[in-house]
Amino acid sequence: MSKLSAINDEADFIQRYLAPLAKNVAGSYGLNDDAATLDVGEGYELVATVDAVAAGVHFFADDAAADIAWKALAVNVSDLVAKGAEPLGYLMSLAFPEPPSPDWMTGFSGGLGAAQSVFKIELAGGDTDVRPGRLSITITALGRVPKGKIVRRSGAGVGDVIFLTGTIGDAGVGLALRQDEALKSAWKLGENESNFLLNRYHRPKPRTRLAPVLQRYASASIDISDGLVKDAGSLARASGAGVNVNCAALPISEPTRLAVAGGVAAETLLTAGGDYEVLATVPADQTQAFAQAAEVAGVAVTEIGTMTEDKNIVFAGPDDAPLVFQQTGYDHFS
Amino acid sequence: MSKLSAINDEADFIQRYLAPLAKNVAGSYGLNDDAATLDVGEGYELVATVDAVAAGVHFFADDAAADIAWKALAVNVSDLVAKGAEPLGYLMSLAFPEPPSPDWMTGFSGGLGAAQSVFKIELAGGDTDVRPGRLSITITALGRVPKGKIVRRSGAGVGDVIFLTGTIGDAGVGLALRQDEALKSAWKLGENESNFLLNRYHRPKPRTRLAPVLQRYASASIDISDGLVKDAGSLARASGAGVNVNCAALPISEPTRLAVAGGVAAETLLTAGGDYEVLATVPADQTQAFAQAAEVAGVAVTEIGTMTEDKNIVFAGPDDAPLVFQQTGYDHFS
Repeated sequence: MSKLSAINDEADFIQRYLAPLAKNVAGSYGLNDDAATLDVGEGYELVATVDAVAAGVHFFADDAAADIAWKALAVNVSDLVAKGAEPLGYLMSLAFPEPPSPDWMTGFSGGLGAAQSVFKIELAGGDTDVRPGRLSITITALGRVPKGKIVRRSGAGVGDVIFLTGTIGDAGVGLALRQDEALKSAWKLGENESNFLLNRYHRPKPRTRLAPVLQRYASASIDISDGLVKDAGSLARASGAGVNVNCAALPISEPTRLAVAGGVAAETLLTAGGDYEVLATVPADQTQAFAQAAEVAGVAVTEIGTMTEDKNIVFAGPDDAPLVFQQTGYDHFS
Repeated sequence: MSKLSAINDEADFIQRYLAPLAKNVAGSYGLNDDAATLDVGEGYELVATVDAVAAGVHFFADDAAADIAWKALAVNVSDLVAKGAEPLGYLMSLAFPEPPSPDWMTGFSGGLGAAQSVFKIELAGGDTDVRPGRLSITITALGRVPKGKIVRRSGAGVGDVIFLTGTIGDAGVGLALRQDEALKSAWKLGENESNFLLNRYHRPKPRTRLAPVLQRYASASIDISDGLVKDAGSLARASGAGVNVNCAALPISEPTRLAVAGGVAAETLLTAGGDYEVLATVPADQTQAFAQAAEVAGVAVTEIGTMTEDKNIVFAGPDDAPLVFQQTGYDHFS
């Protein structure tokens, strides 16, 4: 870590708030060296992904520091999970517009620690800077898969069955609630329902226990960060196929059903991002084995459609009037 | 790559400017997946480091895009080199305050490509965002060393000889020249000398060919990013020892000698950062073998001092009046 020149004692800052997050990673060297080492293991290959989150884009500047930290790590672990990878460690680059308060850093460090425990990943190294602009957290998550076993976006075959984990649209509805708390009563939400939705927005939970199941059974996989339509489209395009989703089969949580009853457009659930669920395709003759393995792993999965030979992204509504999205051009759909 | 929503066609942007930089990395999947894979190889461990550079902090917003790109990659490869690591690939997270022009991106991509060729490393994956603030480039560099062979900051023993690569202070002098071009004539610099110094500031050249030599002979090593005094102090502190440097032995380039003759304080050369040379310690009985191996690798190294038992950071001047820096407190020296 380096270049925190605007913070009075950089070494103390790192040792106080960040080094505890790295204490079980021998190769972090206590965050006291120029680089970290990680043992990937024989027969494995490294899986690496980077995503930045920034105030005003991916979270609100006045969100709880612990929630910001959680989300920054979750969005990256989510990419590892979708690739079937087991976490090895992560590097974090922090950019603060001004030196953070001790309280804020305590919350941030606590949120990372909580996320680390749940996601089974620890800090290995990083970089900290104070510079004008938005608070941003850039995390590189490192994981591993047995050689050749990464689950690509591009492996889906025509006829493969499409599964989705958890429920869809909650984070988007939670975001609306975060922006306007009056919606809670407008949608007739109880305290639990409101908290569920806000939590889905603030604290996405990558389906880490599904990773080995995906590795074994999935032909292709992607995490839902940009919305179901866009991400399903990305998987379809990479696989050279199309997607046919039965909207009636989509897993919707009760709180989100209440929000839809209260006026949220159902289409929003298809296009809002931030759920960090997994969309996976499974060859038709393996769906039962996949579903059973997912159940053993404790991850709810729902069959929502199939991969098709044409290149269209079709979301068929209950009224049999399908929404059809072209392979190109869905970037700006919303 | 994702979230470049303010750029009209994100996929086209990535394919045009970034994918060519990843074309030889099979595990980059053409920058079309959620994560990259890299084979670390049996018997090796992964070495990972992250550093961000931002406009107004590490470079000027109106620096040539190619130079900005070069520096962003160089500062990270420099950390790999100092650890004795061989480059495997890198991930890059870009944050633009506004969508860059095609010309700017062409320059940026070209600068990265040039640096890649020289440093023997290629792009494996990344993330691109448009958000208010400073242009920033966060790179995670990944490399490898045979297991247990990383060169730490902490391995220097008392009596070990301190070596420095290249020449020291050029980048700091180059920065002054970048800020005030009138200094060129004030310092009586010719065109070549001025260009040399500006180039040392804009295009640091990590001593990649020294990495295997460090791995074999160095007891400890650090790259000079924050200035010789501070970085030597970090190595000394990590090693639980002190440093005694003979200032008369420090390698100074001719252009920098001219700048000193023209009024630049000699102490500036000790405290200015950005040279990205390597400071390495070598056991006394191996200095000859180290120097020979460095020569074979084509990297100039100079013996500048020794590791001492006391904890002081001593830079002994030619007038025998040493500058002594305490182990703590040099953070704000300059």
